[in-house]
Amino acid sequence: MANDLGEVLHELIVSTRILANQKVLDAFGHVSVRNPHNPKSYFISRHQAPELAEISDLVELNLDSEPLKPTEFRLYSERVIHGEIYKARPEVNAVVHHHAHAVLPFCISGREIVPVFHLGAVIGPVPFWDQRDEFGDTNMLVVKPEEGASLARALGPHWTVLMRRHGAAVAGTNLRELTFRTVFGCENAALLSQAIAHGHVDSLSPGEAKLTGAHQLRPPSTNRAWNYWVRHVEKAGLMPARNGAKSRAAAAKPAKRKAAKKNPAKSKSKKRR
Amino acid sequence: MANDLGEVLHELIVSTRILANQKVLDAFGHVSVRNPHNPKSYFISRHQAPELAEISDLVELNLDSEPLKPTEFRLYSERVIHGEIYKARPEVNAVVHHHAHAVLPFCISGREIVPVFHLGAVIGPVPFWDQRDEFGDTNMLVVKPEEGASLARALGPHWTVLMRRHGAAVAGTNLRELTFRTVFGCENAALLSQAIAHGHVDSLSPGEAKLTGAHQLRPPSTNRAWNYWVRHVEKAGLMPARNGAKSRAAAAKPAKRKAAKKNPAKSKSKKRR
Amino acid sequence: MANDLGEVLHELIVSTRILANQKVLDAFGHVSVRNPHNPKSYFISRHQAPELAEISDLVELNLDSEPLKPTEFRLYSERVIHGEIYKARPEVNAVVHHHAHAVLPFCISGREIVPVFHLGAVIGPVPFWDQRDEFGDTNMLVVKPEEGASLARALGPHWTVLMRRHGAAVAGTNLRELTFRTVFGCENAALLSQAIAHGHVDSLSPGEAKLTGAHQLRPPSTNRAWNYWVRHVEKAGLMPARNGAKSRAAAAKPAKRKAAKKNPAKSKSKKRR
Amino acid sequence: MANDLGEVLHELIVSTRILANQKVLDAFGHVSVRNPHNPKSYFISRHQAPELAEISDLVELNLDSEPLKPTEFRLYSERVIHGEIYKARPEVNAVVHHHAHAVLPFCISGREIVPVFHLGAVIGPVPFWDQRDEFGDTNMLVVKPEEGASLARALGPHWTVLMRRHGAAVAGTNLRELTFRTVFGCENAALLSQAIAHGHVDSLSPGEAKLTGAHQLRPPSTNRAWNYWVRHVEKAGLMPARNGAKSRAAAAKPAKRKAAKKNPAKSKSKKRR
Repeated sequence: MANDLGEVLHELIVSTRILANQKVLDAFGHVSVRNPHNPKSYFISRHQAPELAEISDLVELNLDSEPLKPTEFRLYSERVIHGEIYKARPEVNAVVHHHAHAVLPFCISGREIVPVFHLGAVIGPVPFWDQRDEFGDTNMLVVKPEEGASLARALGPHWTVLMRRHGAAVAGTNLRELTFRTVFGCENAALLSQAIAHGHVDSLSPGEAKLTGAHQLRPPSTNRAWNYWVRHVEKAGLMPARNGAKSRAAAAKPAKRKAAKKNPAKSKSKKRR
Repeated sequence: MANDLGEVLHELIVSTRILANQKVLDAFGHVSVRNPHNPKSYFISRHQAPELAEISDLVELNLDSEPLKPTEFRLYSERVIHGEIYKARPEVNAVVHHHAHAVLPFCISGREIVPVFHLGAVIGPVPFWDQRDEFGDTNMLVVKPEEGASLARALGPHWTVLMRRHGAAVAGTNLRELTFRTVFGCENAALLSQAIAHGHVDSLSPGEAKLTGAHQLRPPSTNRAWNYWVRHVEKAGLMPARNGAKSRAAAAKPAKRKAAKKNPAKSKSKKRR
Repeated sequence: MANDLGEVLHELIVSTRILANQKVLDAFGHVSVRNPHNPKSYFISRHQAPELAEISDLVELNLDSEPLKPTEFRLYSERVIHGEIYKARPEVNAVVHHHAHAVLPFCISGREIVPVFHLGAVIGPVPFWDQRDEFGDTNMLVVKPEEGASLARALGPHWTVLMRRHGAAVAGTNLRELTFRTVFGCENAALLSQAIAHGHVDSLSPGEAKLTGAHQLRPPSTNRAWNYWVRHVEKAGLMPARNGAKSRAAAAKPAKRKAAKKNPAKSKSKKRR
Repeated sequence: MANDLGEVLHELIVSTRILANQKVLDAFGHVSVRNPHNPKSYFISRHQAPELAEISDLVELNLDSEPLKPTEFRLYSERVIHGEIYKARPEVNAVVHHHAHAVLPFCISGREIVPVFHLGAVIGPVPFWDQRDEFGDTNMLVVKPEEGASLARALGPHWTVLMRRHGAAVAGTNLRELTFRTVFGCENAALLSQAIAHGHVDSLSPGEAKLTGAHQLRPPSTNRAWNYWVRHVEKAGLMPARNGAKSRAAAAKPAKRKAAKKNPAKSKSKKRR
């Protein structure tokens, strides 16, 4: 993953637009990236539909998911999903929470997602988490740190966790890997649903899943898909302007400071999902 | 909901375009809003595909669904769906009748719609209504006041009612809530159909449904989705010009009077669905 | 239906574009209209993907599906579907043959299509025809007059016939009715498939089907849908220029003569489906 | 098929764009064409999403799938699929490897694909190949010559082979036939899945399949579909500029030499799928 902060934040927005354009995200869901220079913080958009987020909408949160600097932005109420996964998994640098229609049938039926084609191998084992088990009847949002921590425990050493009657959380070591796993995880789920309708499912063997998953996550493969999705984001008129800081030096110039950091006044970090 | 009439009517058109763009409405179906200054009347387009409606196509009807002023516009023959729901439910300020493909399989199969993911909780219980039960063989349109009243009784204290072999009627306390409930009600139905194909359905518990539905209908959530859908309406070239009366004062100016009120001559309010 | 020939031919192209834009037609299929001034002939495009047809591509065929004037255009090999239906059904003035994905599953599974929602009532009873029954193994194209006549017999007094393992033929008293029946016939089939997946289907009663079908085919309903589809054809950049002859007088002017009639030389009416 | 090399390479790019636009190809998959002047070599894009390929991205490989001239381009790691099929089948002049969602459910469920509508007859018998049978657990990519040869043996004298848990390889005597077979093979598979959901499938008789498949592969039919798909490629802004060499003479001019041949320096033909 790029080490330059400006590049990383630009890539966060591009990843978000890709996932929106690929119908993984809609009005809801969110993507984050760990600060490449500070493993104790991460960046995420203020509360809004993810597709609409610009670099100037990003806020930096600590791993308790509180803003490093006071902000007037309303924050996602479910941001603890991100913070608690970063806390539990040092090797994770990017996280998405989504409600894609491809995976939701599994969240509803409780059927297990298994890899059924080579590109689907990148999901790895997919455990379930049911907020109801530990917290009883709730408004189903993951807002308390202990709820996020419980979800992170269910994820364990894996990369995707299904949230019963809700959606999924996906992790990656970088944004391109995350995007690849998320899109092909959805495709794998959609294909699995179709095979279920055929009445029989043959999944990858454990050996195939391991060898294939590792191979597909190498940069030539993730970059090839990334470049393709970027082209489609461009055609959809969704490509963000590269107005973000191109380097930390540039980022230091006043004109390029992120709006989120322009309002150190009040700390009314309103909560929203 | 906005209290300014011009704003409300503009929002009615935007809501209609959103629902068309989200494939809830097509050539048929219609959306209405109660007059914020007169609970005894409501606004609805003249007879046409809802996506094509402009503010100048709106007519004001009393709760018996007759125009307040003579009009030459052809009216929707099924407008009593709106009038009778407004009559029975003072807290309802917006109504849509639609035939979305997501809910029609339930109207045909008779399977119950239950909330299966958090955003689907906004539908609440979804009763059925079968025009045939009370009225026998008809042309299946809800055109008589007693048919509309029967439908409103089936809706009861709830917010969505499925019309067997026909479609749905959805109510809201305002247009944004209505739009949110309608879109996510359709998504919930589509996901439920997919889970049915998996052979097992786990729905929200009653406690989850209640807590989650109430939370999701709060403005931060409905506005977040509204803004996202508006962006997509804009991209589809469907955003109505804000040429409607911006305020009641402006609305009073002759040049901005609605066409529907320009023809006080004849009262040939032709009926159409 | 318009009585003016220029108008009718323009409407034929518009209907074709609507059906292409609504995914009923693709590279294959064709639409025709009977000559409003000569019940013994009809107009249809030369051999090509229907969406690409312009008025200048139309040819006039007699009811044996042979061109009235010599033409160098390659003709659809399956044009006897049209000619034989016009021969058998004097009240039919427009015909479409298509392979829409909504109805093909029924052509393959042999399940009967029944009306399952009010707009679907316009299809009426839908008989099956299997070319194999009478003609054994063929290339499955309806090219011989006796094959077309057999299909027309299977259609009988109805308005849609399903061709096993092939597609459908739909008839109408005019182009707008035809378009309406075709689109909503497809929607009815798609919804029926979804209800089948729910495990139970409740269809319209015979009384409902009769009353509703007749009501929906009245001009206010068919025109409302037509205007909506035209708007979408316009947005897709598919609206044909109104360069066709506006009247028979205009049509007689050299500059407006249809290309099909400009080549009286040879009679190499090549066949193609 | 065109005999002019410039024309053939242009058609290769157009075929690729058609298959991308028809959702057969996405970030992965690839199309190739045999050199019309040298049956011992074929052309294929360098490693990238196929939709993005331009003529300048093409490389010429021998039937062992090694570049004729040194190139710095990264090559598809699975190019042996193409080379080994060309080696085994002299009459094959074009090959595609894809992972279309229409056929993958069959690769997963192991259900046989049979022709279920007339246009589907062009697929012919569709054998399965399981890389695991002969090679055990792998990364599921067909990268070794013996893997490609094994796949070609499974294809045998047929035109489509399904790769279990992976995708398909399709062959044609020319690019238009290949494109036609691939698109309608996918449509046949999608329709078959829908009929399976109806609970009953009637397929073409062997006689129908043979007669119909042969008829549909004649140029009037394949060209009609090609022209239609080209129109849609144009509307999607995907039509490649005809900047490729228009003739061999032109191709010989320095300015028009393919980039792949401009770098005879090093032979670092990096492998990628």
